[in-house]
Amino acid sequence: MKQLITVNLKTKKYDIVISQSENDFFTVLEKAVKTNTFFVITDKNVEKLHLKYFTDLLKQKGFNVKTAVISAGEIGKNIKSLSSLYDSALEAGIDRKSCTVALGGGIVGDVAGFFAATYMRGINYIQVPTTLLAMTDSSVGGKTAVNIKGGKNVTGVFHQPDLVWINSTFLSTLSERHIKNGLAEVIKYAFTFDRKFYEYLSDMLEEGTTISPKDFDYTIYKSCSYKAKVVEKDEKEITGLRAVLNFGHTFAHALETITKYKKFLHGEAVAIGMLFAIKLSLELKTCNIETYKEVENLLYKAGFILNTKNDAKQMLSLMKKDKKSIDGNIKFVLIKDIGKAISSYVKDDVVLSVLKNFTEENK
Amino acid sequence: MKQLITVNLKTKKYDIVISQSENDFFTVLEKAVKTNTFFVITDKNVEKLHLKYFTDLLKQKGFNVKTAVISAGEIGKNIKSLSSLYDSALEAGIDRKSCTVALGGGIVGDVAGFFAATYMRGINYIQVPTTLLAMTDSSVGGKTAVNIKGGKNVTGVFHQPDLVWINSTFLSTLSERHIKNGLAEVIKYAFTFDRKFYEYLSDMLEEGTTISPKDFDYTIYKSCSYKAKVVEKDEKEITGLRAVLNFGHTFAHALETITKYKKFLHGEAVAIGMLFAIKLSLELKTCNIETYKEVENLLYKAGFILNTKNDAKQMLSLMKKDKKSIDGNIKFVLIKDIGKAISSYVKDDVVLSVLKNFTEENK
Repeated sequence: MKQLITVNLKTKKYDIVISQSENDFFTVLEKAVKTNTFFVITDKNVEKLHLKYFTDLLKQKGFNVKTAVISAGEIGKNIKSLSSLYDSALEAGIDRKSCTVALGGGIVGDVAGFFAATYMRGINYIQVPTTLLAMTDSSVGGKTAVNIKGGKNVTGVFHQPDLVWINSTFLSTLSERHIKNGLAEVIKYAFTFDRKFYEYLSDMLEEGTTISPKDFDYTIYKSCSYKAKVVEKDEKEITGLRAVLNFGHTFAHALETITKYKKFLHGEAVAIGMLFAIKLSLELKTCNIETYKEVENLLYKAGFILNTKNDAKQMLSLMKKDKKSIDGNIKFVLIKDIGKAISSYVKDDVVLSVLKNFTEENK
Repeated sequence: MKQLITVNLKTKKYDIVISQSENDFFTVLEKAVKTNTFFVITDKNVEKLHLKYFTDLLKQKGFNVKTAVISAGEIGKNIKSLSSLYDSALEAGIDRKSCTVALGGGIVGDVAGFFAATYMRGINYIQVPTTLLAMTDSSVGGKTAVNIKGGKNVTGVFHQPDLVWINSTFLSTLSERHIKNGLAEVIKYAFTFDRKFYEYLSDMLEEGTTISPKDFDYTIYKSCSYKAKVVEKDEKEITGLRAVLNFGHTFAHALETITKYKKFLHGEAVAIGMLFAIKLSLELKTCNIETYKEVENLLYKAGFILNTKNDAKQMLSLMKKDKKSIDGNIKFVLIKDIGKAISSYVKDDVVLSVLKNFTEENK
């Protein structure tokens, strides 16, 4: 099965190719990027699994291929990694006409994208995601970032890829935990945009059911389609439409920071963040108890552990530093109904009271 | 005297205000940026001279003002400075709606611009240049950068300011050496774009003549006008037009790298680089001996020391790593006549032979 989604931006247009065929990739690549040299960036985990396969693919077509490997996990998503990529690239003779490839999960995509955006004031890059999280979310949309001591994704730029190749055969090497990690973002699209998709996922995640390759391709396609639509309308998160994609993320980013990016995978933190956001929605009466239960049920069905014990005041203070906060006021994405989300500033005392209950409940 | 140059880009429009009046600045600022909070970035030298004056100015208007100070000179133009700015900004509560101010010379502008381009994926910034170099060149055009071990300006992004305020009273605290530093770029505009301006400068730099405030305002206005025109037509250095602004710079960047950014100010290196480029032009017969002499004469008239002894092969190897180089071929800006420049790839053996003579002559 081959599916093509075109992301039409004001200043740029690029394709997402969902296909297990290498020929499909090369057909689109030829049109998207004119270069002789690729700089493939990956992490230590993906290096072992897929780097040789991918670089051989490019070499067979006669391209020069240079590679760089960063540490795996959030620990590799920092300015030090970025700095070492600049050095390696210059050393390897990577120039303005070269093309970067982000081969890996969301973290590799974020760092490689930031690198490509800032090396020699911006060079081409393509995304070849290897995790479900990256396939359904982070490889599309041009957000790049690294973390700093004080917070996740504090620094970054918008830099759109020239092509995204999603080959779901990479998923065969992914652990169940990492599949779930990606499902969190998939579920997010259902909660915020599409009740039918919610019902599809609810059936797909029924106990005893296994997720088929067809399910994967469908959920990837649906997720990328929503992501592409939103990015087209609000590339740089200005109108507020794109902000809806951050459902669950304000809490998640604070949780990841407080646990030093070690305890939770991104999707696991987002799942807890979505539960927090729906509790906030219920408290503010933007949704009713039935919607609340639907959200909670699907999260449990997907197998997320939704317990977390954290200092409420510290969490609040971290959320106030979130990029979406303006003058210390925190903006949350809230749910009105399954498939309908809104963005709203929420007062500190409301956030704190829901935070306290959330922590108490889980003690 | 107040002069206004509007830079009309495809995606953005901003003003350069050349005026000694603070009211002129605030009138334009009001339209350009909507914010309550300014994050003023400067270096240790400018901190002593102008920081209090400038922050008081903003505070009098009721704005919140936060500041950060980086090391002065090329030593402060690195990823470490950038990283410390991210930390300070987050700590100070700088958010997406805040506006960065680059108060200082070209280095402060480059680093502050890079910071503004990448903090929370891009926030507003204004340039308030305090040196002649920054007033005539680097504050306009949106090039931001930091150096890495292997080379100058290897990393950066295009991020246009929202306003440039050029107040030439700042020049009163500038040393003669730093005035000359700025003159190099001014002279560059004359060499590459305008014989009449060349003649104006030639008169202005006649022995025994002092540069009047009126001269400064005129040279700043002329320089910014050329810069703005070029940037409008080739914002991201794609068509090659903008590349002409790099006359003398390929050599200069290598010279700065080889001398570890310690021996030469940027303009001093550019002056030597322009002499090298005109020697190369003569060698390649793009210009005649008269033009060569005109270029050489003005450089000497401006008082530049044009001696340098360096290893030719090492210089070549550094130039091959320049951002303008493609697949190891070095692109140079050459002169046809005063006011007429072209960009051209030059073969290594030609570059090396001129480099060797250049070094021999100066031994």
